[in-house]
Amino acid sequence: MPNAQIEQVLATLDAARAETEASLLAWLRIPSISAQSAHAPDCRAAATWVGEQLAELGFEVGLRETPTHPVVIATHPGPQGADVPHVLIYGHYDVQPPEPLELWTSPPFEPTIVEGPHGRRVVARGAVDDKGQCLTWLAALRAWNTVAGGPPVRLTIVVEGEEEVGSPNLDAVLQAEKDFLKADVALISDTGMWEFGVPALTVSLRGMVYVQIDLRLGARDLHSGLFGGSAGNSLNVLTKLLGELKDEDGRIQIPGFYDGVIEPGANQRAAWDALGFDEAAFLGSQGLSVPSGEKGRSAPERMWARPTADINGIWGGYMGEGSKTVIACEGHAKLSCRLVPGQEPAKIIEGIRQFVKARIPADASFELQVFASTPGLSVPTESPFLDAARAVLAEEFGKPVVLSGGGGSIPVVESLKRILGLDSLLMGFGLHDDQVHSPNEKFELACLHSGARSHARLLARLGGKG
Amino acid sequence: MPNAQIEQVLATLDAARAETEASLLAWLRIPSISAQSAHAPDCRAAATWVGEQLAELGFEVGLRETPTHPVVIATHPGPQGADVPHVLIYGHYDVQPPEPLELWTSPPFEPTIVEGPHGRRVVARGAVDDKGQCLTWLAALRAWNTVAGGPPVRLTIVVEGEEEVGSPNLDAVLQAEKDFLKADVALISDTGMWEFGVPALTVSLRGMVYVQIDLRLGARDLHSGLFGGSAGNSLNVLTKLLGELKDEDGRIQIPGFYDGVIEPGANQRAAWDALGFDEAAFLGSQGLSVPSGEKGRSAPERMWARPTADINGIWGGYMGEGSKTVIACEGHAKLSCRLVPGQEPAKIIEGIRQFVKARIPADASFELQVFASTPGLSVPTESPFLDAARAVLAEEFGKPVVLSGGGGSIPVVESLKRILGLDSLLMGFGLHDDQVHSPNEKFELACLHSGARSHARLLARLGGKG
Repeated sequence: MPNAQIEQVLATLDAARAETEASLLAWLRIPSISAQSAHAPDCRAAATWVGEQLAELGFEVGLRETPTHPVVIATHPGPQGADVPHVLIYGHYDVQPPEPLELWTSPPFEPTIVEGPHGRRVVARGAVDDKGQCLTWLAALRAWNTVAGGPPVRLTIVVEGEEEVGSPNLDAVLQAEKDFLKADVALISDTGMWEFGVPALTVSLRGMVYVQIDLRLGARDLHSGLFGGSAGNSLNVLTKLLGELKDEDGRIQIPGFYDGVIEPGANQRAAWDALGFDEAAFLGSQGLSVPSGEKGRSAPERMWARPTADINGIWGGYMGEGSKTVIACEGHAKLSCRLVPGQEPAKIIEGIRQFVKARIPADASFELQVFASTPGLSVPTESPFLDAARAVLAEEFGKPVVLSGGGGSIPVVESLKRILGLDSLLMGFGLHDDQVHSPNEKFELACLHSGARSHARLLARLGGKG
Repeated sequence: MPNAQIEQVLATLDAARAETEASLLAWLRIPSISAQSAHAPDCRAAATWVGEQLAELGFEVGLRETPTHPVVIATHPGPQGADVPHVLIYGHYDVQPPEPLELWTSPPFEPTIVEGPHGRRVVARGAVDDKGQCLTWLAALRAWNTVAGGPPVRLTIVVEGEEEVGSPNLDAVLQAEKDFLKADVALISDTGMWEFGVPALTVSLRGMVYVQIDLRLGARDLHSGLFGGSAGNSLNVLTKLLGELKDEDGRIQIPGFYDGVIEPGANQRAAWDALGFDEAAFLGSQGLSVPSGEKGRSAPERMWARPTADINGIWGGYMGEGSKTVIACEGHAKLSCRLVPGQEPAKIIEGIRQFVKARIPADASFELQVFASTPGLSVPTESPFLDAARAVLAEEFGKPVVLSGGGGSIPVVESLKRILGLDSLLMGFGLHDDQVHSPNEKFELACLHSGARSHARLLARLGGKG
């Protein structure tokens, strides 16, 4: 009675909610900030934590070392002798830096349960991105283990610790483990639902180039009275060049920036329009009202199919209390561009170099540090795996599934395709207002539990047991 | 034998060099940073130090309290019954913040004597601005006290502790002490020589407006992938508007910025040209080669007679190690404009407000904090006091005196004129490469001692004794 079994698994999941929440809170207490080297030991602790969870469920678990944070790789043969698909599940245990700390209503690494319009939610850095989402499949695996002694499919699980810094070492690991990581499909829970109660599968993702510009002008800081009017000012130069990133229509001015960008077809535009995306409400929830990005394009297009250029940080000169009349000799900025299919990251980086070089005086110099370089991509919409995911999500939520684009970047999706030949199923349970990468990041516990149920159903379906 | 007496005073000064240097070092060890409230006790200590020095020399000394740092006021009747002029000497005991600390070759508040091309120099924050320059008249007064039991003129001395933050409270004190501070001329040592060995008197000064722009866009920081292309970015907005401060010719675009600015006459231009100012060398000593400021104007004109707009500091978003893909909701910048006679500070501040307002989206807001607001001014070149200063400087240095403009701002000069009706003699001994307001600020001890001798001579001349 296969259906009896999935009902049993779902009942077990529902009975284990408190346990599932407690596991998530324990993981969230580990400040595994991959960008900050001081937190390397915490990253390792977070890796060990998930490894132990999987070992308890009968997985064979190993840590693959990298120059910074280790990758957890775990495997389970699935049901003895059965001819079942081999699923590779990917997640990441690292989180973004929590700064600015003063804006958090509770400490970022002391997860706190609060009541919201959708019921209980957990507030913490990593609540949804990606520890909470990992718990959705981890809880499903635990329930399957309780009911059936293991998962209904063959599984390989990869949990890395560098996703938030552009996965600099993951490709090498995938390359080295290429044969060992053979599978039929990849399953990733790091994206969002359409809205609360309405499931979505993400079928396109933007890539990213992330650089730091370190500008230098002159040998030392100078007195703005003695030198003002003669000496150049690195901050005037830096703001002038960054101020020219976009024209009045929001078109990005980096040389060759739009080369290769594919314009969406009429069908695609029609599908986006059909979604009836409410940008006013989307921005309103963030205290905004004026859409940014290119003029004359819909919000879904701007967020899913068009590249961006955002200054993520800037600093230089006197940043302290009061006034200091200084002409600073150094200015710094962090700049990231979300990329779409067709753009080549290496060309964009070179374009940024040219853009800066063309806008600084002859006595200025600059360095470009590259923190991320990954192309945009789309996943096939004609696939039995995608069909299975659509079916189980519709079952779980009682609503049709939205095939949406994703504005964010999940570099691993491109790596899995390029290195292992795997297409990815992007089935996630976040919401727009989860404040990912911001203070007070949260995850709705309702999303955690329906996400776990969805994964339990998907595994059953793929294993021919649901 | 008046001349015998000044020779005696000069000999006494020369014999007391070690003592003079020791006094300066002691004062420099007090980190009297007026911009940083944590250093309020140090400011008071620096005030007390100079007060005690003056009390030792027979001055009647008092501290006038302000909301932040006290003003030292000291008086000496001068020679009994003699009909001598009444000179008001102004100085300031506060210093600029020393940041960035890592660029100092020795700790900013552990004054260090090193050898340079002009002999021994002292390296410390405040070495020349203004503690070292104050020591030039303080040493002269001490020598006069040793030789003649007191100064040859009637003296009032005002040493404030808020010059580096725009003297927000000095006017109130001058107002309150108006009658008590009556004098014939003001003497200020806070400017520079033309070059080492060539004395200068400063006859014009730029004013200053210093503001902080605090820009806000949206309720919180956002994920650049989920929101990029729809949400506005405070740092893109801030850099764009600051980047538009100047046009391609260096003309400042703040509304009404040049209203009232007086164009220099042909004679003035001729006099500047005659100075043969070597801008290439001036900039070269700072690792620069490309002149900034308005096109088609000489360096002396740009630095002494034209207003500026320099970004003194900027910050926002993620400034830490590595990458964080955030769209920041807050950006901050410190902006200062050097003003020339004819410009009204209040109108410039209003112009900056309009400039920003016109360049931010409807859902952005900003606040303007004003840290300084003082007009530019010039001092009369037809005056017996100026003649006396020219004569003694020529005597001391054996070179004709350059009447130069000053790029910096000394707000008190305008206050002394407006409130007390006093013209100022700006006789200073700094050099272009003293790195005022920068790391490794220094003062040439040769300048300290010749400055002290010049003050001793000036007092003699004004008192009819030299």
